[in-house]
Amino acid sequence: MVSRIGREIDLSPVELGSRVGGKVRINMASGTPDPRVIPIEEIKNAYEEVLQEKGPRSLFYPGAGGQPELIEEIRRFVPSLNLSLDKEDKIVVTSGAQHAIELISKYFLDNDVVAVENPTFVETFMAMKLRSNVTLPIDLDSEGMDVSSLERITKIVRPKLVYVIPNCHNPAGVNMSYERRKALVELASARDFYVVEDDPYRPIAGCVPPPIKSFDREGRVIYVSSFSKIIAPGLRVGFIVAKGEIAEKLSLLEQLDFSTSTINQYVVANLLRRGLVSKRMTTLAMHYSEKMKILTESLDDAGIFKFNPPKCGFFALVDLRTDAERVFEVATKDGLSFVKAKAFFLRGGDTMARLSVTIPTAEEIKEGVTILKRSVLDVKL
Amino acid sequence: MVSRIGREIDLSPVELGSRVGGKVRINMASGTPDPRVIPIEEIKNAYEEVLQEKGPRSLFYPGAGGQPELIEEIRRFVPSLNLSLDKEDKIVVTSGAQHAIELISKYFLDNDVVAVENPTFVETFMAMKLRSNVTLPIDLDSEGMDVSSLERITKIVRPKLVYVIPNCHNPAGVNMSYERRKALVELASARDFYVVEDDPYRPIAGCVPPPIKSFDREGRVIYVSSFSKIIAPGLRVGFIVAKGEIAEKLSLLEQLDFSTSTINQYVVANLLRRGLVSKRMTTLAMHYSEKMKILTESLDDAGIFKFNPPKCGFFALVDLRTDAERVFEVATKDGLSFVKAKAFFLRGGDTMARLSVTIPTAEEIKEGVTILKRSVLDVKL
Repeated sequence: MVSRIGREIDLSPVELGSRVGGKVRINMASGTPDPRVIPIEEIKNAYEEVLQEKGPRSLFYPGAGGQPELIEEIRRFVPSLNLSLDKEDKIVVTSGAQHAIELISKYFLDNDVVAVENPTFVETFMAMKLRSNVTLPIDLDSEGMDVSSLERITKIVRPKLVYVIPNCHNPAGVNMSYERRKALVELASARDFYVVEDDPYRPIAGCVPPPIKSFDREGRVIYVSSFSKIIAPGLRVGFIVAKGEIAEKLSLLEQLDFSTSTINQYVVANLLRRGLVSKRMTTLAMHYSEKMKILTESLDDAGIFKFNPPKCGFFALVDLRTDAERVFEVATKDGLSFVKAKAFFLRGGDTMARLSVTIPTAEEIKEGVTILKRSVLDVKL
Repeated sequence: MVSRIGREIDLSPVELGSRVGGKVRINMASGTPDPRVIPIEEIKNAYEEVLQEKGPRSLFYPGAGGQPELIEEIRRFVPSLNLSLDKEDKIVVTSGAQHAIELISKYFLDNDVVAVENPTFVETFMAMKLRSNVTLPIDLDSEGMDVSSLERITKIVRPKLVYVIPNCHNPAGVNMSYERRKALVELASARDFYVVEDDPYRPIAGCVPPPIKSFDREGRVIYVSSFSKIIAPGLRVGFIVAKGEIAEKLSLLEQLDFSTSTINQYVVANLLRRGLVSKRMTTLAMHYSEKMKILTESLDDAGIFKFNPPKCGFFALVDLRTDAERVFEVATKDGLSFVKAKAFFLRGGDTMARLSVTIPTAEEIKEGVTILKRSVLDVKL
């Protein structure tokens, strides 16, 4: 007999989707950033410089919590995320947002109650699900999580954590409205819960409302960010901003894995110092928004799909209005892969597909939608 | 109220020791490999080659379980660790040995019983301790864990996991004997427990008995290795070898953190392919054994210390025969830092010090022992 986590862990549908996705001609499954905009040369130079300047020190064990030089660079960087830190805010460097959420879940949860958007990102959510007994699915619309619905539910059950992806939602593509961000923080205070604000898309989001954390005066919001979208996911560097004891403890919990590469932390610090990250923010927001425009126009033209036009990011969540499982089977044979979005839903979602614009070219996006339409019609026949 | 792990996590004495260690002239506290033997140039070339050859692919998200190319290189490499894999053995790439043990603990433990050597490495052990209710401390002597003592105890209490550091023990410097390795596997079968064989020092150990895992026919031994000592810790790459379902599940558990850098995995694969790792094994074993000889000779000459001469690795565990806490206070003022070893013991250890040979030069080691002797005499006055 193993642990509860050991018994319940399973292959994530996203991981499965990306294994299938890689084998199919048009890959609209993958959540990886567009390979064409990964700054290979700049990263190569950064490794060279770091090894030159720091020598062996760049390859020592990382300290728990992150390398001070990177923390300092992140401190200078966060204002461009529309986040101003106060004296009590601390930065904890992590191996990306996924690791951040694993640390947060480990810190807070022992078979507790959590509330999440329905749908939510199944992969980050897994870390919470495996440590909670009750999950409250809160409806999501074009304005993000329905906070009034959360307000009603929390009259009866109090969650310990509320997990939110406020910008370029994965899989739904929506942004949470300014009013709801504010209302969520007020509710957190009234009902005594913590908010996990998972915000990895902000650096490539363009213009979005301020972080939920910026409304928080009580240290109830734990902010999670990442360099995966703005630099590259393979470095595995992200960070948490949280207050006082929570930040201290999350940083101590890193002693259990010491998983964030020291040299990669210095590489990210180098790129931040050179202004590469800030410079790319506008360019990448435009890049992805152009690709997304092609997708939404193609979907509109096809005339049979229902979806909320994504505000930013990589994904559109599309209602195929027929069994997505069967469409998936037909489409993959025809050269298109996507992620069957049922897995993102705590209830419903059988007809939903998540389409990503990062890997395919403009032409492939158009062709992908054609295949998708054909597959839907085929299944409906 | 947070989770049990959240409540109980605390600063590790090793982490504390290395924070103090860095500020003192002679650092015999740090467990980091000797900076003089980190292959900076080779690593620099490897990054350049990987980025050149693989381009953006080297910076994609890592898959759970590790990159197939690295797994293949590790498969070719393990025979030089005296380990032969059979068909059921699987390799799981991790962010170093610490992350490996975190994954194993997460998989097996829900408030269970574990048995460990007394003393044991407090930092890796922490991942188990925070998930177990009972820890059985098993005596350790110059032949490693006293398996007959484990045999007696397990008549009364059955542990789920037994954690062993078989080579160049941290902090005790000893190797487990051939006979005890064999006996441990037989006991695991008879009493139905699993063995976690934490073997990060083997690549720099020189000639040591075969892995405990090599005696195992039932998949009861989970083997943990690392490239931290043989290449560099800052890459955060290590691996697990385990059988069947255990390996599958450990690999799935990586979906919760996705913490092992993709590019660093390719860098290690590159260095393995070029034979750098195998080539360094003999050289580094000699390097550390020469430094250790200087330490043990100095300790012998000092005439007041009791210790088992380390067989290999970085550490000697020395009985100061007086309160190590007080000696530490005096010694650090005098320019020497070490780790007070009480923290490694589940019982006893008040007079013990862990001395590391990696950072100090030969001269500094000698001077360190002089300071240590002076401090001990000072405290005894």
